[in-house]
Amino acid sequence: MNALEQLRAALGDIVDTAPTALEAARRDQSGHAAPGTPLAIVHARSAADVQTVCRIATATRTPIVVRGAGTGLAGGANAGEGVIVISTLRMTAVHEIRADDLLAVVEPGIINADLNEQLAPHGLWWAPDPASRAISTVGGNIATGAGGLLCAKYGVVRDAVLGIDLVLADGRLMRLGHRSVKGVTGLDLASLVIGSEGTLGIVVGATLKLRRLPEGTPCTVTATFPDVRTAAAASAAVTAAGIQSAIMELMDPASLAAVATHLALPAFPAGSAQLTVQTDGPAAVEEADAVAAVLAAHDGTVQVTHDPAEGERLLAIRRSMHPAMAALGTTLIEDVSVPRSAMPAMFDEIARIEREFGIAIPTVAHAGDGNLHPNFIFEGDETPAHVWAAADALFRAAIALGGTLTGEHGIGVLKSRWLAEELGEDQWELQRQITRVFDPLGILNPGKVFADA
Amino acid sequence: MNALEQLRAALGDIVDTAPTALEAARRDQSGHAAPGTPLAIVHARSAADVQTVCRIATATRTPIVVRGAGTGLAGGANAGEGVIVISTLRMTAVHEIRADDLLAVVEPGIINADLNEQLAPHGLWWAPDPASRAISTVGGNIATGAGGLLCAKYGVVRDAVLGIDLVLADGRLMRLGHRSVKGVTGLDLASLVIGSEGTLGIVVGATLKLRRLPEGTPCTVTATFPDVRTAAAASAAVTAAGIQSAIMELMDPASLAAVATHLALPAFPAGSAQLTVQTDGPAAVEEADAVAAVLAAHDGTVQVTHDPAEGERLLAIRRSMHPAMAALGTTLIEDVSVPRSAMPAMFDEIARIEREFGIAIPTVAHAGDGNLHPNFIFEGDETPAHVWAAADALFRAAIALGGTLTGEHGIGVLKSRWLAEELGEDQWELQRQITRVFDPLGILNPGKVFADA
Repeated sequence: MNALEQLRAALGDIVDTAPTALEAARRDQSGHAAPGTPLAIVHARSAADVQTVCRIATATRTPIVVRGAGTGLAGGANAGEGVIVISTLRMTAVHEIRADDLLAVVEPGIINADLNEQLAPHGLWWAPDPASRAISTVGGNIATGAGGLLCAKYGVVRDAVLGIDLVLADGRLMRLGHRSVKGVTGLDLASLVIGSEGTLGIVVGATLKLRRLPEGTPCTVTATFPDVRTAAAASAAVTAAGIQSAIMELMDPASLAAVATHLALPAFPAGSAQLTVQTDGPAAVEEADAVAAVLAAHDGTVQVTHDPAEGERLLAIRRSMHPAMAALGTTLIEDVSVPRSAMPAMFDEIARIEREFGIAIPTVAHAGDGNLHPNFIFEGDETPAHVWAAADALFRAAIALGGTLTGEHGIGVLKSRWLAEELGEDQWELQRQITRVFDPLGILNPGKVFADA
Repeated sequence: MNALEQLRAALGDIVDTAPTALEAARRDQSGHAAPGTPLAIVHARSAADVQTVCRIATATRTPIVVRGAGTGLAGGANAGEGVIVISTLRMTAVHEIRADDLLAVVEPGIINADLNEQLAPHGLWWAPDPASRAISTVGGNIATGAGGLLCAKYGVVRDAVLGIDLVLADGRLMRLGHRSVKGVTGLDLASLVIGSEGTLGIVVGATLKLRRLPEGTPCTVTATFPDVRTAAAASAAVTAAGIQSAIMELMDPASLAAVATHLALPAFPAGSAQLTVQTDGPAAVEEADAVAAVLAAHDGTVQVTHDPAEGERLLAIRRSMHPAMAALGTTLIEDVSVPRSAMPAMFDEIARIEREFGIAIPTVAHAGDGNLHPNFIFEGDETPAHVWAAADALFRAAIALGGTLTGEHGIGVLKSRWLAEELGEDQWELQRQITRVFDPLGILNPGKVFADA
């Protein structure tokens, strides 16, 4: 029997070859699609199903791509010609919620926001909050090492996972990490799997480190500034004042203007940039007032609200960035990250690249942690060469400033050609050899992350 | 030339073969000594020195053991017959302290407390605080994935390192991780190196993630309880009340009695156990009062102080544990860690093992995170067979409760025989293969962690 016949014999009607489903599995939210058509999608119901698929894939040397909700932005879960897609979307169980141990044991397919809805009645919360949290899965968050808006205060996925159940390419199930807060037995393979983008195994379960929901109601401060450098300096001044905000989002003039148009708001003065800061916890009000004072002292026109509904209205401007971009054309969302102090310099570099390539690069930033999302807009499905050239200049600038080409989206297929430049050839090769320990046949997400030249 | 001749030719008088120095390198603070005598100690001054040693070791197939201050408790840095010891104690530079980016770039040999003394004038702090912080190095803290007293609130080493400069067995230098808060390029090798106990390479530099020093002065609460289970339940009640203390230390009756004798304090009532809790930050006073109320409601006889000097006096009882044990005989300090909720059950297990083996096992615990340190006391240098048998029972009990055999001390040589039991044979073998990617000849800390049967 060939691979498809074996899958059908072993797994029956969870093996899906409907053309629309196969077509959808070729794409993620980057807009990029893998070439060719996958063999089948297996809608796994359990770790055992995943193990069965892996055994068949190993026996038949068939490549495997794992997919959650397909909300990735780097093409990491896009499935091309002849690939078996393992979908985790039916694996949504929450096996345990422990307020005393501040942990939850979950399956990978649960949506981040759905999990948090189940945690809230217990006064608990899984902190990682990618912008996609309403539609992305916990397994996908783990596979990409996702970040989000709250990271400067509450950490990234790496800080919020205790243990991972991983199915290897050959179908063996391994329990990595710990259930206790501390644990140093052997190598920290759970950390290694976080952000490994499907190259080491399939995450079939996770023990998550939870937090208690912050007390009180969040307060929100927005301020507009005459230009983006002033806004970036003001955000640095907030950090320098020792105030740890929950959210600190920066929008540059092009972003702000695009969102104003999209939402039919009155236009902001030309060249204006905006900061939106949210504070939370028991000292939220005092911190918001302190933030407002710092921003006003740095040339900001400031609005403060202690009303959560009004706060959400103010944040809606930032949250409308992606729809506003999408309305302008196809969007390539980049994801460079630099040390906080280098953020003004990175904005200067973006301005230089805009001039050099004659394009606009609307940029928003998680200003509290130095993670910028420059957007390239173009027509059609294929990223044009001059956009890749500008992106190349962007990555080099970020690396030169002590930063990285991806803060939270991952390498996938779209950034694999720059990976060796950041890591160096030696480290690239070392990392690739580590993937071969987990996956000697190279059937896990081939062509992604460590794509050969 | 043989290895020693090559070392001398290349490195001159930093190659040390003084018998007392070689003898000292055989031991750490576990009391255990490696068999045989090391070849030489190289007092490395720089990454380049380390690279030179590694090239010679690779060419001559000579094993390497890296050592910081030798404060380990699992024999991980003990150097035996024919080994080249690389000492990092002369590599103490602090290259950068950045308040704006909340990071420091340091060499591995700097003592944890010395680093924190240099950070304090900047209002900064590296949070990992093993009990050995006055005498242990940052490099050793990283190599063991050290924990400490403040971990429940402020995290472990894994949460406090952004990047690592690592020299591989063959002498190549790799820069792992990032300088930015976020970064997901390729595999997270910096995390993998944390806790790898010298099996993957030599840490020659680190980019550390800093915190701002907490505001205000810490408050301290102590309470004595009629028995250890009541004390454990009271500590769980503090966590359940949603109060995040900075420190929460538990001493069982045998520990408390030994320290009272050691410090010539009035005896505690027979069977008494004690909790010492410290709160810090802007809400320290309110939190201390809340802790006191919870402990009093759980049968505790409570003392509260808002005076830091008096607080240190109260904590001195806990800090005198190790000298009190040392005064009784040779001590094997164990390090099991369990989910917080399993702590009362773990104390029951310890009582059972005490009865079964007819020995006392004085135990202290970092109660905020479920990490227990049971102490075995005996005469002479060699751990007796019945102590190992009792430790074996202890490890199995911890694992059965969802815990681990080491929370923060590491595997080293003393726990390597139990590693496969916790990891499973498959994961043990996978981890060992990963070490071979970094160190194909197996010259890095051979016989440690992944010791062959």
